[in-house]
Amino acid sequence: MIVVMKIGSSQGEIGGVVKRIEEAGLKAHLSQGVERTVIGILGRTFSELQDMLQLLPGVEEVIPVSKPYKLASREFHPERTIVKLNDLTIGGNDIVIMAGPCAVENEEQLMATAWEVKSAGANILRGGAFKPSTSPYHFRGLGLEGLKILAKAREETGMPVVTEVMAPGDVELVASYADILQVGARNMQNFALLDEVGKLKKPVMLKRGLSATIQEWLLAAEYILNQGNEQLILCERGIRTFETATRNTMDLSAIPIIKKLSHLPIVADPSHGTGKWYLVSPMALAAVAAGADGLMIEVHPNPDTALKDGPQSLTFDNFRRLMSQLAPVVRAVDRKLSLRGALATKQSQGRTE
Amino acid sequence: MIVVMKIGSSQGEIGGVVKRIEEAGLKAHLSQGVERTVIGILGRTFSELQDMLQLLPGVEEVIPVSKPYKLASREFHPERTIVKLNDLTIGGNDIVIMAGPCAVENEEQLMATAWEVKSAGANILRGGAFKPSTSPYHFRGLGLEGLKILAKAREETGMPVVTEVMAPGDVELVASYADILQVGARNMQNFALLDEVGKLKKPVMLKRGLSATIQEWLLAAEYILNQGNEQLILCERGIRTFETATRNTMDLSAIPIIKKLSHLPIVADPSHGTGKWYLVSPMALAAVAAGADGLMIEVHPNPDTALKDGPQSLTFDNFRRLMSQLAPVVRAVDRKLSLRGALATKQSQGRTE
Amino acid sequence: MIVVMKIGSSQGEIGGVVKRIEEAGLKAHLSQGVERTVIGILGRTFSELQDMLQLLPGVEEVIPVSKPYKLASREFHPERTIVKLNDLTIGGNDIVIMAGPCAVENEEQLMATAWEVKSAGANILRGGAFKPSTSPYHFRGLGLEGLKILAKAREETGMPVVTEVMAPGDVELVASYADILQVGARNMQNFALLDEVGKLKKPVMLKRGLSATIQEWLLAAEYILNQGNEQLILCERGIRTFETATRNTMDLSAIPIIKKLSHLPIVADPSHGTGKWYLVSPMALAAVAAGADGLMIEVHPNPDTALKDGPQSLTFDNFRRLMSQLAPVVRAVDRKLSLRGALATKQSQGRTE
Amino acid sequence: MIVVMKIGSSQGEIGGVVKRIEEAGLKAHLSQGVERTVIGILGRTFSELQDMLQLLPGVEEVIPVSKPYKLASREFHPERTIVKLNDLTIGGNDIVIMAGPCAVENEEQLMATAWEVKSAGANILRGGAFKPSTSPYHFRGLGLEGLKILAKAREETGMPVVTEVMAPGDVELVASYADILQVGARNMQNFALLDEVGKLKKPVMLKRGLSATIQEWLLAAEYILNQGNEQLILCERGIRTFETATRNTMDLSAIPIIKKLSHLPIVADPSHGTGKWYLVSPMALAAVAAGADGLMIEVHPNPDTALKDGPQSLTFDNFRRLMSQLAPVVRAVDRKLSLRGALATKQSQGRTE
Repeated sequence: MIVVMKIGSSQGEIGGVVKRIEEAGLKAHLSQGVERTVIGILGRTFSELQDMLQLLPGVEEVIPVSKPYKLASREFHPERTIVKLNDLTIGGNDIVIMAGPCAVENEEQLMATAWEVKSAGANILRGGAFKPSTSPYHFRGLGLEGLKILAKAREETGMPVVTEVMAPGDVELVASYADILQVGARNMQNFALLDEVGKLKKPVMLKRGLSATIQEWLLAAEYILNQGNEQLILCERGIRTFETATRNTMDLSAIPIIKKLSHLPIVADPSHGTGKWYLVSPMALAAVAAGADGLMIEVHPNPDTALKDGPQSLTFDNFRRLMSQLAPVVRAVDRKLSLRGALATKQSQGRTE
Repeated sequence: MIVVMKIGSSQGEIGGVVKRIEEAGLKAHLSQGVERTVIGILGRTFSELQDMLQLLPGVEEVIPVSKPYKLASREFHPERTIVKLNDLTIGGNDIVIMAGPCAVENEEQLMATAWEVKSAGANILRGGAFKPSTSPYHFRGLGLEGLKILAKAREETGMPVVTEVMAPGDVELVASYADILQVGARNMQNFALLDEVGKLKKPVMLKRGLSATIQEWLLAAEYILNQGNEQLILCERGIRTFETATRNTMDLSAIPIIKKLSHLPIVADPSHGTGKWYLVSPMALAAVAAGADGLMIEVHPNPDTALKDGPQSLTFDNFRRLMSQLAPVVRAVDRKLSLRGALATKQSQGRTE
Repeated sequence: MIVVMKIGSSQGEIGGVVKRIEEAGLKAHLSQGVERTVIGILGRTFSELQDMLQLLPGVEEVIPVSKPYKLASREFHPERTIVKLNDLTIGGNDIVIMAGPCAVENEEQLMATAWEVKSAGANILRGGAFKPSTSPYHFRGLGLEGLKILAKAREETGMPVVTEVMAPGDVELVASYADILQVGARNMQNFALLDEVGKLKKPVMLKRGLSATIQEWLLAAEYILNQGNEQLILCERGIRTFETATRNTMDLSAIPIIKKLSHLPIVADPSHGTGKWYLVSPMALAAVAAGADGLMIEVHPNPDTALKDGPQSLTFDNFRRLMSQLAPVVRAVDRKLSLRGALATKQSQGRTE
Repeated sequence: MIVVMKIGSSQGEIGGVVKRIEEAGLKAHLSQGVERTVIGILGRTFSELQDMLQLLPGVEEVIPVSKPYKLASREFHPERTIVKLNDLTIGGNDIVIMAGPCAVENEEQLMATAWEVKSAGANILRGGAFKPSTSPYHFRGLGLEGLKILAKAREETGMPVVTEVMAPGDVELVASYADILQVGARNMQNFALLDEVGKLKKPVMLKRGLSATIQEWLLAAEYILNQGNEQLILCERGIRTFETATRNTMDLSAIPIIKKLSHLPIVADPSHGTGKWYLVSPMALAAVAAGADGLMIEVHPNPDTALKDGPQSLTFDNFRRLMSQLAPVVRAVDRKLSLRGALATKQSQGRTE
């Protein structure tokens, strides 16, 4: 941490800052510049110190020089994290595809979609049982009933299941049905929820908040890692900007930045990231080209009757087309599409091979 | 709801849209323009319909003409809501002042601050027991211990207490200690929490989310109103923008907009809204001039030792100065500062009058 | 300037940075911390150095400790600038009111508005002759004809005139008609234009760009000051954010920040800042309460026939109402409304007194 | 255009709107809904009408149903525009690479870079002679001297040259040296400049403004097209958001949106889009995967001594590496890298083949 003094700060003011630093058990190191004095702090600082020093007389600015997260950082954890789920790996050389409807609407809808995306090459089934909704009058998901349908789809198709959990009190319930628990964008800073999923022994997927900086996102990840759960996947799904042509602005540069700053795997959700089905495929290809470890794609048998997010859902045909466009791009960046059917049962093998 | 067809859409496409509208039990009304056909929908539409129609062939755009919230809207509830708390009223002609430390740190700190702000004219004591924190390594509040200190301060000073609740499971506990429950910015779309505070018979203060539009904010309010709790206060506390000179960008225009669109009272929090103590007073005056029904101000005996948000906290002296600057501005907009000491006990009267 | 080295940077890397600093004629000052080395640079640095050092091996970050502007800063120019225009002063204790139509449409419209706003208390007449327009098909102003009508209005009413200049080649022409030249938000970084108005001996009003930080705004001001023109007024007019309920988000906190960082006067334009006439008055009052030195208000005889920005223009009645609401707020913050009729001719005195 | 009346608007108010519509030579078409009346307008509306009707009594909202741009739109111009430059085509199946230093610093620097990028596969040489700079104290380019060096580089290497023009008065000069004139992000709404380059018979590249919506960008393009210049290329280069980890947030979804809404070619500039050299390659690959027609890349012999934008410039080695990573991605999306050496002279052929 570095304290920049104001131009013309007095010896008394400089002494006051030094005294406060020493009271905190740290050492001060002065640099007397042409215009002003800069004080370096030696020793293990704590984040509250920045706020405190900033208020002392004569102080212009206090600048932290360490990143505020450790467990999520690559500096402290240079080797990449690879999340394992049965024989699937997320964060290694394979590209993993998660696909399925935004919300589980009924068994028929989910089952049809599950078989379809599996046969087209998806590895993991997505589907919401608990759904966040901006309006209290919109569909909010089937809840427990939705979880049961998801479990049944896993049973039959052999695909592991990723689904959202929205409240700390639901974590145990959702974890008993799901293979990966998703923390949604609106809950990225729901700290009680982060603590709770951090105590699990199951993979968690943490979506970036609508207005979260990369640093805040990694700090949210730090909550989960700090509780002991290292099976953590990040998911870029678009941020809020002034642009209204898309539902969100997908920040694909977050993918190489996360790769540089952190060891955690990162996938991309172009469905929420754009909000428009005709943008999903180009942005899915782009995400993989930028280095994403996987994709999360909304697919629905009849988007124009979907109870949620129809406009951003691919039809079965469009999903197949995406998968066939994806294959050469995956190869072009020297990676490969994960083998499908991770938990493949006999029945699913019968249908898909 | 209005369906705008593409230029050159066919009779078949137009017929398809009309059919879908009629299947939903509604009536379609065609306007044949020079370039394109526009279809008005008559009857009570539902929000999912917009998404569904948007995907039909030949459709360019579907435009809703009703606001998505009703209970929060002034169209459906023209008279203003006045929240009552003992003899205090929020949303009427009085301007209400909530003040206190960001976080309750210990009894001494809170008690000193409570007496001080009360004697300077504050009506309600603020103080966080459960604190959201971007980093897992920062101070997260005293929890239950903090609630007990707040209750003791109310007991002694007679000031009602506002404090944050962060998880649905804590609502009952916090409600047993607090007079007003605050839902923080990060939780504005924590729907389980909104439902829970909506079931209370106590006032709730709902802060605007960092990246929430006015409409999303009113829809979050709608969640609470929809559960039956009409004692609801909104609080503008700054939004996230590209500007880095302030912690957030305070959107004071939200105050007159909320007054126009809704019947709910609105207060302003210039401490979080700016993040810098020297901006708090000018923005507090500005908020009242713009029509705010009250202010929420962070005050700390020694901001430079505060465990949280010291840089945005006023000292006792600065708070007194603000209160004296505020008085003429309040009069200038034909309002008055609420009488202090709403729950005034003998002891508090002894000290403050 | 401070160079923060990476954790584990080598002696060779540190030596490389020191060498580069010394090659630039500066001195390096090392602080060896627990985790990393920090290098302070002593001497007058230049801004390009930051970029250059950032690329050297082992460097994590380079942090400037001086502000990049000097002439616009209060550190280097502690006394406030007061712009003088005849007997008007902008930036002192007086609050100055600029009012008039968005665009000059014809002589009748401008003259009627000029007399009206003058009699209601405005000091300066605004009106656009050259108008920026998002679409090439919208009204772009009367050009020279508009300037002539403005000059005539000044002649008759005695009010000085502020109008926009959009191209470097027009500066001389516009300066020959106007008393204050306005550089609009879209041109805040039109550097050729800044240079040109910087060479004038007339007051310039520089609006904040839609996506300009406070620092970038002050750097744009620095361009003008650097050419020698110190008669500079800043104008906050709203920034672009995700919110769509207003045309822009008015950042009133910019007012006290500018007062802290700079010596330049600052006025507020709530008409462009909000885009809606019913928000103009509350935000005008708020701007003055926050410390603005003046207001710029759009007024039109018939906003529903205005060729430009009707929705944000006040009618004559609404402008009078605003002026009467403003008076007590101005007094409440210990300032006073400027005396009207700065250049008052006999005729205007006859009509307005 | 559709006029949505308020709930409970009177017959008189509805009549007033109809009257105004008819006065404008248009026809009104009423839909009486359950809650409110909606009035469709038949005939060719003009944009100012929206503002005017919005202010009439009883009107809730006025919604345009046509896009405000025509010449730039694909609805009115379904076939794609292919810009031709000698034997290069931009906007067809080829991917075009523009590369070179941010600013021309001297002949040696430009010549070395030109030969290098040409031999690595670039088709067009970029280099700034007139440079926008946030601070008046930074390097602002060599001006005419820079143009001459660019012309010499074209002469020797045979590569066409793209360079920025910043002021209307410089258009003729810059056009006499450059093959493609670039309008920079800060000048996207410099309307005098747009008009001027619109009169040229040379290709123009229009960068997206930092805070420009897609629609505003296409309206800026409309200015140029409206003057008769159809050789127009768009360039996505990042928008301003709250994120500070990158210089700008590159909005790659703009690429497929532009492809859907417009017939104009679009290239991507990941150097400015990210501001960090280590993000340039992943975002370049992503841009091509998303459908970009070309790339603009900053390359410098020694980024750590560059006078401008060193941190975002690739070294020669990094540029070669990017080109080799790019080739398979280009093939994966069924396109091909443009043949290099469009204007190839004997000398350049000698060196590069």
